Amino acid sequence: MKLSYDTFAAMKLKNEIWTFMRKHPLFHHTEATRTLDEERHITTKRMYAIYNENFVAYDKLLNGPELLDADTEATFMFDSSLAVKVSLSFRMFFNTILGSGAEHHYHFIDDAQKAKIGGCFALTEVSHGSNAKGMRTTATYIPEKRQFVLHTPDFEAAKCWVGCLGKCATHAIIYAMLISKGINHGLHAFVVPIRDPKTLKAYPGVIVGDIGEKVGLNGVDNGFVMFNNYHLQKEAALDKFGGVDDNGDYKTPFRDPSKRFGASLGVLSGGRVHITSISANYLQKAIVIAIRYSGVRKQFGPDGGEEVPVLEYQQQQIRLLPYLAATYALRIFSNWFGVTHISMTINRMMGVDDNTAAAKGMEIHALSSAAKPISGWMARDGIQNCREACGGHGYLKAAAIGDIRNDNDANCTYEGENSLLLQQASNWLLSVWPRRHKITSEDAPLGSLEFLNNVDQLLAEKCKWNSVKDIVEPKNLIHMYKWLTAYMLKMTFEKVSKLKNQGKSNFEAKNESQSFNAVTLSVVYGENYILNHFYKTALAFEDAACRKVLLKLVSLYGAFILEKHLATLYIGGFFSNEQGLLLREGILQLCAFVAPDAVALVDTLAPPDWCLKSVLGMADGEAYKHIQNSFMMYPGALERPEWWRDVVFWDTYVPSKL
Amino acid sequence: MKLSYDTFAAMKLKNEIWTFMRKHPLFHHTEATRTLDEERHITTKRMYAIYNENFVAYDKLLNGPELLDADTEATFMFDSSLAVKVSLSFRMFFNTILGSGAEHHYHFIDDAQKAKIGGCFALTEVSHGSNAKGMRTTATYIPEKRQFVLHTPDFEAAKCWVGCLGKCATHAIIYAMLISKGINHGLHAFVVPIRDPKTLKAYPGVIVGDIGEKVGLNGVDNGFVMFNNYHLQKEAALDKFGGVDDNGDYKTPFRDPSKRFGASLGVLSGGRVHITSISANYLQKAIVIAIRYSGVRKQFGPDGGEEVPVLEYQQQQIRLLPYLAATYALRIFSNWFGVTHISMTINRMMGVDDNTAAAKGMEIHALSSAAKPISGWMARDGIQNCREACGGHGYLKAAAIGDIRNDNDANCTYEGENSLLLQQASNWLLSVWPRRHKITSEDAPLGSLEFLNNVDQLLAEKCKWNSVKDIVEPKNLIHMYKWLTAYMLKMTFEKVSKLKNQGKSNFEAKNESQSFNAVTLSVVYGENYILNHFYKTALAFEDAACRKVLLKLVSLYGAFILEKHLATLYIGGFFSNEQGLLLREGILQLCAFVAPDAVALVDTLAPPDWCLKSVLGMADGEAYKHIQNSFMMYPGALERPEWWRDVVFWDTYVPSKL
Repeated sequence: MKLSYDTFAAMKLKNEIWTFMRKHPLFHHTEATRTLDEERHITTKRMYAIYNENFVAYDKLLNGPELLDADTEATFMFDSSLAVKVSLSFRMFFNTILGSGAEHHYHFIDDAQKAKIGGCFALTEVSHGSNAKGMRTTATYIPEKRQFVLHTPDFEAAKCWVGCLGKCATHAIIYAMLISKGINHGLHAFVVPIRDPKTLKAYPGVIVGDIGEKVGLNGVDNGFVMFNNYHLQKEAALDKFGGVDDNGDYKTPFRDPSKRFGASLGVLSGGRVHITSISANYLQKAIVIAIRYSGVRKQFGPDGGEEVPVLEYQQQQIRLLPYLAATYALRIFSNWFGVTHISMTINRMMGVDDNTAAAKGMEIHALSSAAKPISGWMARDGIQNCREACGGHGYLKAAAIGDIRNDNDANCTYEGENSLLLQQASNWLLSVWPRRHKITSEDAPLGSLEFLNNVDQLLAEKCKWNSVKDIVEPKNLIHMYKWLTAYMLKMTFEKVSKLKNQGKSNFEAKNESQSFNAVTLSVVYGENYILNHFYKTALAFEDAACRKVLLKLVSLYGAFILEKHLATLYIGGFFSNEQGLLLREGILQLCAFVAPDAVALVDTLAPPDWCLKSVLGMADGEAYKHIQNSFMMYPGALERPEWWRDVVFWDTYVPSKL
Repeated sequence: MKLSYDTFAAMKLKNEIWTFMRKHPLFHHTEATRTLDEERHITTKRMYAIYNENFVAYDKLLNGPELLDADTEATFMFDSSLAVKVSLSFRMFFNTILGSGAEHHYHFIDDAQKAKIGGCFALTEVSHGSNAKGMRTTATYIPEKRQFVLHTPDFEAAKCWVGCLGKCATHAIIYAMLISKGINHGLHAFVVPIRDPKTLKAYPGVIVGDIGEKVGLNGVDNGFVMFNNYHLQKEAALDKFGGVDDNGDYKTPFRDPSKRFGASLGVLSGGRVHITSISANYLQKAIVIAIRYSGVRKQFGPDGGEEVPVLEYQQQQIRLLPYLAATYALRIFSNWFGVTHISMTINRMMGVDDNTAAAKGMEIHALSSAAKPISGWMARDGIQNCREACGGHGYLKAAAIGDIRNDNDANCTYEGENSLLLQQASNWLLSVWPRRHKITSEDAPLGSLEFLNNVDQLLAEKCKWNSVKDIVEPKNLIHMYKWLTAYMLKMTFEKVSKLKNQGKSNFEAKNESQSFNAVTLSVVYGENYILNHFYKTALAFEDAACRKVLLKLVSLYGAFILEKHLATLYIGGFFSNEQGLLLREGILQLCAFVAPDAVALVDTLAPPDWCLKSVLGMADGEAYKHIQNSFMMYPGALERPEWWRDVVFWDTYVPSKL
């Protein structure tokens, strides 16, 4: 089953990483929670230890682009903050320089590769995140000195949420408004020295600090920075896509300035692709824990009979098994998506450009703008179901699900708030609709517009299946999703048009057609793609026994996500009478079918126990022993608190009135 | 608006409590997060400080039963762990003794009232929570010594999750299987000395400890306890509802032993009523924060125009405003529910029993079994929407929403896991259905079965409204919910019957008709009641301007919760064609209508700023200033970490391979 989403090379790499960690003293967990500062400290040390191993060198990546996600998965399974830190301090930093800089910047790459310096990526400001055009940090060019003056007008323009800037980074990629000869040329990137790499002291003119505790990911030192007329050499500008010459005259290879900015932010689209994978990691951990525990935990049973594992209860199944199917769907999709994106990036860097590159870039932008929210939300909902399905013990920190939820939570808002990203995808789809009869595979080389084939005929259809078996048949579910996607696009397009005909501006018309329309459209578009990809992968799987199980998971995933849009199927006239009941009955039957294999299916997905580190989710099924161990070994568990006198003699500090 | 859910006396009490806290040095927040031990310590000291004030003495409560919830609300708004600790250490402890004990136990009550001892309530065991009958702690009677021997056979039978037992409690109410003359008489309660009140050292024979860190509520020291043939005097038994005489012969005033156990657990039904109120508190805090911030945060805008507060965006409105309406609905309902339950309890204690008491007790059992999950889940979903609607800054710990979520999370599983509670409610409803034509107000004095009036005629109806205005008219929504509740009951009853006719046992038939049926039934039943109660309260509100706004909130709440069941309205044939579109359009229009008043509406709900303690949610709307303050004041924010050498000289502990 692992081969449905992993290659042998990826499995081997993950094992190498886990073996390394397992043998290294820094990578052993402690019983009690660390303070914020301790957490930052150990994560930083681990970062150097693992980065030093260079598990995925560039030459390996050329032959195995899937290894990058495998590397990330292995690290995430151990600790998400660690994975984030490695990725931000080094990879994102030098990828940005490689993408937007010139040869004279490459010494930064060398230094980062040798971990002599540590970088970070600073775009967001306190009062502007999504609306990058509203940012107010300025870099004003002074030709006489061949220098830029970097300046933060006030706290609202401070760069913030910058991962690794809080305590560690020595250099930052700073986005600032480039001003020359009184003209604002828009946001441009600069490599900016922040702290002395020899002392870690901030340079004069730089106010840099830590933003403090977050909901999760507390091993990452997110920071803020303000510049007080801070002078940079002209070479600090990463000006491959545009910048000033020595005299301060602006030059860019792009005719359309909006394209210049898009290109310089290209690295962010990779971020979204990456987050689909990160979300899958979180969901994967949670589902392993909850299903294993549900196989062990027994409660109630038939009169006079033995108690039954809670996994055998219908309501427990429906809370967990659709998310098991979703985990497979997302794992398979995100691994493929990562490879697709990396291959495209490598091709571009090496100048191997095929003629579909531009269209593919646009499609990846739209697809990642839909897939990132879908994955983050699926993980969010799945993790919450896992948490509740574990009952009271699921509320133990040692169960690990609470931390998984708190870490995943960031996925819903960073690298583009979900609702805004969905608008990116729907804007593209709306622009495509008028050309719907002329779409070819060149418009969307990844196939995400295939739902538009014969769309008029499709939209005239009604659902013709009237048995549970037919309704949950994968190829029929695929067809229903095709209808749903086309229907949502048509409805949204018509709503926007209607509003415009009523005299609304484009801004108003778009805004007023988000809820129930554009937002749902983008979600359905992404789900449709993920479902199709899952189906194709399952169909093509060699081993017949595994293929059968995979196809059941496709059915379950498809029926589960379609059910969320059930009302829309009726509103659009595609479903009628009791077809919805058949779909719901189908979900229950699929859950009952999958249940006996569920523990085996999560064993496939599971990282080693010491990575998972959940008292409820160990492979041995001895949850109660691990709970016992956790209770007894917690520092001070059996002792009187040091402050016991404040209990016994409370009336010494609160004069008693009782 | 406050008067829709509060009395003047309740408002006055809350202000008294807040004024007391505000002036007391113990109740001031710190910047950095405390360690687990520090958190336990400060919460314990605060517990004594506030309990000592005795804000709601029993005589006050007789004339103002609403004051108990007001007291809890005031404390929860400051710190949920504190509220839980006060309630468990003292109130629940002596309520149980008062309810199940005799006069010779009342010295425990005196001591607890004077805070000379601290109690706790221990029912749950490691391997049994919901299934109380499976519990395995034993209390074996030895007539020769007039003693019970309390024994825990193994760790799986250890009492656990006991609030306040971890560090503080001196006494516990322990539920154990009473065994006498070789016969197991089932679970009975005992008052058990755990720790010496003079030294806080555990007594020999008692292994007691702390269960360690939880997902939230970490000011509460949840503990576990095991007994090793621990001897208790016979008087330890709380035997009002049943117990042994000196010879070990069993006596009970109940003929039916299941009723004996039910009566002794009566205090738990109060717990569920209480949790509907607790959930409302959490949602209330979160919605205040998110709506105030959304009024302040500006992002994007029309071309060339000013940036717009995000609250003006449709998608932001639909994520927040239905939950604003829900907060009012739950606040109004839970305050009323608390008063109803307390009045009933006081009447019972004082022997003032009206002839509907038994029926009312049953109805409160069912209604609280539905309302507790509904409120906990509504808070869960609302809080999550608030968190995401605050974007990146919502992920700051200083935004406070993460902690609110983590605290509320316990509501989903404690005092009865939600899915199991829903089964309690549906079991009652299913038992009522065959008598549906004979139901009178005596069967359900609180009116929760009114949906069964003329039920056959009702179920034959189709929705006759075909405009947005009609569909979201409160009285029409009330009617639609009535139909939906009746329909779900009929469908669930038929499914159970069908399964039984197929030869399934009662256990199997009930299990296989949970998802999409019994679970939904109970949810709809509770929602129907809450909606009706909200509508009646709004209609009866004196002030016309407020009444108008309240009725809009009723519409929004009703349309929002109905929309979740939209597919079922189609499946049942009640809705057809595009009626669902009208409902959705109605929700959007209502959101747009409520939006301009939203900040004022949350100002009504808001506790003082220093209670809310959210950088995003302060009344002054200066979110960015509070963020700045939080960044700058966080201990060590601007300093080099003490471990800076581990960054600069990392190759001293990890030999470089780079």
